[in-house]
Amino acid sequence: MKKTLMALMMVVASVTFAQTMKTLPPVAKEGGMTLMQALEARASARNFNIGSVLTDQQLGDMLWCANGYNRKDMRTAPSACNAQAVDIYVFTEDGIWLYLPKEHSLKQVKSGDFRKQTGKQPFVANAAANLVFVYDSNRFGPKPGETKWAVSDASFCSENVYLYCASAGLKTVVRGMFDGEALAKLLELPKSQSVVLTQSVGK
Amino acid sequence: MKKTLMALMMVVASVTFAQTMKTLPPVAKEGGMTLMQALEARASARNFNIGSVLTDQQLGDMLWCANGYNRKDMRTAPSACNAQAVDIYVFTEDGIWLYLPKEHSLKQVKSGDFRKQTGKQPFVANAAANLVFVYDSNRFGPKPGETKWAVSDASFCSENVYLYCASAGLKTVVRGMFDGEALAKLLELPKSQSVVLTQSVGK
Repeated sequence: MKKTLMALMMVVASVTFAQTMKTLPPVAKEGGMTLMQALEARASARNFNIGSVLTDQQLGDMLWCANGYNRKDMRTAPSACNAQAVDIYVFTEDGIWLYLPKEHSLKQVKSGDFRKQTGKQPFVANAAANLVFVYDSNRFGPKPGETKWAVSDASFCSENVYLYCASAGLKTVVRGMFDGEALAKLLELPKSQSVVLTQSVGK
Repeated sequence: MKKTLMALMMVVASVTFAQTMKTLPPVAKEGGMTLMQALEARASARNFNIGSVLTDQQLGDMLWCANGYNRKDMRTAPSACNAQAVDIYVFTEDGIWLYLPKEHSLKQVKSGDFRKQTGKQPFVANAAANLVFVYDSNRFGPKPGETKWAVSDASFCSENVYLYCASAGLKTVVRGMFDGEALAKLLELPKSQSVVLTQSVGK
């Protein structure tokens, strides 16, 4: 009886873990376009196919490009004073996920489709994924220029997403039209964190 | 006598042109690292070799990556409301140059070495080139959020420079410590234009 209970508890724990964490596949660093080809193909697009989804491989590769670790403690995008204060939330059909770059995993924040709440334009709801770039001023510390560097650091990540999408044949557009306060409430962000940019990705 | 004068005038004109305009070699779009390799190699570096220079090929390729035309009227970096309001000035050992993306040329703004005036850190003077990203609010027009998009748009360009440098084996670092007013004066910028970011590139 004890053994059955233990086994049951392990199943419950594993299902709970499966619901809240998703380990992303190793980043596909071989192949793809050259940098110059990706720059040649870089473009903004808003005409997303409804119902298309990204594979975990695409999601993970894109997030690594955006702001993953390319060295032990350093990232693919620079950050002012090396604060590494940008978090990326991913809104997909099945939920809201926070990218954990050290673990190269996604942590589910909410289940359900909240994609259209990431922006004001109608096409936003059709994107396979909407990225929300959040800046944590606690990590930057009491230095001047915080707002400027929040925008700058998120934009470095966003351009990396652009180039990944160009290389992977995906469509994307960075967006400034969003309700930052509503998003902060939805994401239950602490006071030190704010939404800086959003970006739609799809097919 | 008339013919001699005419010939002399033509030589003078051509020397003047050579001094003020520099046509950059066609962008080397073949070869180079893959995007993923460039992201893997992306890093900030401040230890530049004194006396190193960039070739015109490197300068031109870097500037095209930063903010060149990859379509008839569109660029390698996105811009808010498609304002395309970022200009890039290049400070080298021999002068200050404005990148003209349509012509893929450099226009000399001043001759002389002004590199160290682009930043406050000592290593700045040793960089082969210092880029100064300038935003023109006249091109953006009377829309809200101008300061934010100025930073964002310049940062997109800056990240492209990072990836070009990674691919080309050059060192680079984006910089926020500069005297924007002094630079605007030096560059004789009109009131609508301001310095947003600076970036050092070298070996």
